[in-house]
Amino acid sequence: MAGGGGTRFWPLSRIHTPKQLLNLSGKDVMVNEAVARLCRITAPENIYIATNTAQSASMEKAVKGRIPPENILAEPAARNTAACIGYAAVELIKKRGDGVMVITPSDAYIRDDDAFEQVLRTAVKAAEETGKLVTIGIDPTFPATGYGYIRFKKSDGPVKEVLEFVEKPPLERAKEYLASGDHVWNSGMFVWKISAILEHYKTLLPDLYNNLAEFSEAVGTDKEQDALEKLYGRIEDISVDYGVMEKSYDILVVPGEFGWSDVGSWDMLGVLHDPEENGNVVVGDGVLVESKNNIVFAKDKTVALVGVSDLVVVETPDAVLVCPKDKAQDVKKAVDALKAMGREDLL
Amino acid sequence: MAGGGGTRFWPLSRIHTPKQLLNLSGKDVMVNEAVARLCRITAPENIYIATNTAQSASMEKAVKGRIPPENILAEPAARNTAACIGYAAVELIKKRGDGVMVITPSDAYIRDDDAFEQVLRTAVKAAEETGKLVTIGIDPTFPATGYGYIRFKKSDGPVKEVLEFVEKPPLERAKEYLASGDHVWNSGMFVWKISAILEHYKTLLPDLYNNLAEFSEAVGTDKEQDALEKLYGRIEDISVDYGVMEKSYDILVVPGEFGWSDVGSWDMLGVLHDPEENGNVVVGDGVLVESKNNIVFAKDKTVALVGVSDLVVVETPDAVLVCPKDKAQDVKKAVDALKAMGREDLL
Repeated sequence: MAGGGGTRFWPLSRIHTPKQLLNLSGKDVMVNEAVARLCRITAPENIYIATNTAQSASMEKAVKGRIPPENILAEPAARNTAACIGYAAVELIKKRGDGVMVITPSDAYIRDDDAFEQVLRTAVKAAEETGKLVTIGIDPTFPATGYGYIRFKKSDGPVKEVLEFVEKPPLERAKEYLASGDHVWNSGMFVWKISAILEHYKTLLPDLYNNLAEFSEAVGTDKEQDALEKLYGRIEDISVDYGVMEKSYDILVVPGEFGWSDVGSWDMLGVLHDPEENGNVVVGDGVLVESKNNIVFAKDKTVALVGVSDLVVVETPDAVLVCPKDKAQDVKKAVDALKAMGREDLL
Repeated sequence: MAGGGGTRFWPLSRIHTPKQLLNLSGKDVMVNEAVARLCRITAPENIYIATNTAQSASMEKAVKGRIPPENILAEPAARNTAACIGYAAVELIKKRGDGVMVITPSDAYIRDDDAFEQVLRTAVKAAEETGKLVTIGIDPTFPATGYGYIRFKKSDGPVKEVLEFVEKPPLERAKEYLASGDHVWNSGMFVWKISAILEHYKTLLPDLYNNLAEFSEAVGTDKEQDALEKLYGRIEDISVDYGVMEKSYDILVVPGEFGWSDVGSWDMLGVLHDPEENGNVVVGDGVLVESKNNIVFAKDKTVALVGVSDLVVVETPDAVLVCPKDKAQDVKKAVDALKAMGREDLL
């Protein structure tokens, strides 16, 4: 899944270059790092990217030579994860037949690829053997209030039974979850047989299921694009977590610790780059004087900080952003302001 | 006088484009605004600019068509105001004969040109009629701790007798000066007959005087440049305030209120541009969200602030600066750091 808008990395992220197409690590764009990780368990021709029409051209360019261009699925509109996964499931089952499908966001960071591969293989095996919906959980490393949690039944072995999905908790609750030993973060990574998830849609999201079934008739024909647009004009905006996972029983989770981070906003750039001695994370040409614990991302110019702390400063070819680290989430407010001002050039 | 380095306006000010060559007001570069003010009392061919060899080319370009290029005096080294004024005095008396010379920094802002003209005419008249050294004082508008003060004898009429020059005071003292009615800021603007200042040099700065006398022989000959370099290799670094004004008796001051500001650093940009409703001073393309009392100077790009207060953010073609307003003086530390790093490209 690579269709996010990623406004929280503005001014680097834009409509046509969302977060998953950014090279925040200095190594490669995030979607290519995700593809490389998946290539450990399958061939490139088995990797599909779900994006949207606005981004599909830049996506195709980014992954050129790595995965076949026909494996890029472009949603005509944003209708949340249930629609996206349903669309992909129908495409895959029609074109490739039934099988296990792994769904992963393309814009998360994973430090330990080996550990990730192990968890993934375990989840794929469980999905294959049990026919159940499997999700991948992240062993929490701090009392995060920004993620949903999954509570599981303690047991031996790497695969656990899910007891419940839990909403983003307040801090005190998050601390309890962290200490509990039976809560993991909901990573948004799912593993299941295509037929299994479609069966769940049939029961839990019947309207979406029926629309998908109608669309399915057109897949592989010259009416597919029209049918796709019709589909997205009709279906509801709902997440697979809310629409399926939270309402299902008998879900499995494979907890893992592989240095995962969603790198949700600029303040988290320290996940990808070690800070220097004063706690500053500096990517590019930074000159820091009496400044501590800042995030500096300088694309072309020199960025000089004098006597400031805990700021995010981002320089890109047409815009500069300055905000406090603890308000990094509010960067989308700048994007909203630019939208309201009609500054399409900066979106 | 236009030889300052102006590091406190980095990254806009550089070795070859010091503060006096910046257009901070959005109208014209500061030196041209100074020239325009002086043109109210004299012809352009009577205006001389003292700069240094590193800046003379950019200076010539900046004032092209406004004053004759031969009126640009380039000091081979920075030796403070006594040397600069002495050099100019010798040039002028040799080439133009004796007369009243007005000395003004080129990098101060004056809001009320009419009031300034009146004060200047009064000072010129006083210098002409009395033969005394005359200085222009600024009626203080706040208890400034960053300026020297001049205490004068209260009297009728626009021209006062100076009682003493006072060093930059602590805040409590500055408040007393502000309330006193007989203290003005030392503006660094002087008016006197050339012969009068040279007489004072003879008594108070005899070594400088003798060196100037030797240099004087070469003025107007093909040995002038060599003699000038020899002069600057020998003479001491001393200000005219310390070397002459503070040690003299019988000095006059013309107090004035003409909206003067030395615009000494980025935090003072509000003198030149009215703040918007949230107290932000924005020059260029700024997008401000939940941000108050900042200074934004954006040359080419959009500068977006989200949730920050009391910052200076400056964007130029090759560098971005972020610092708190109350540390705007420390910008020179960034320049020092760049020097130490050998980053000549940014100096």
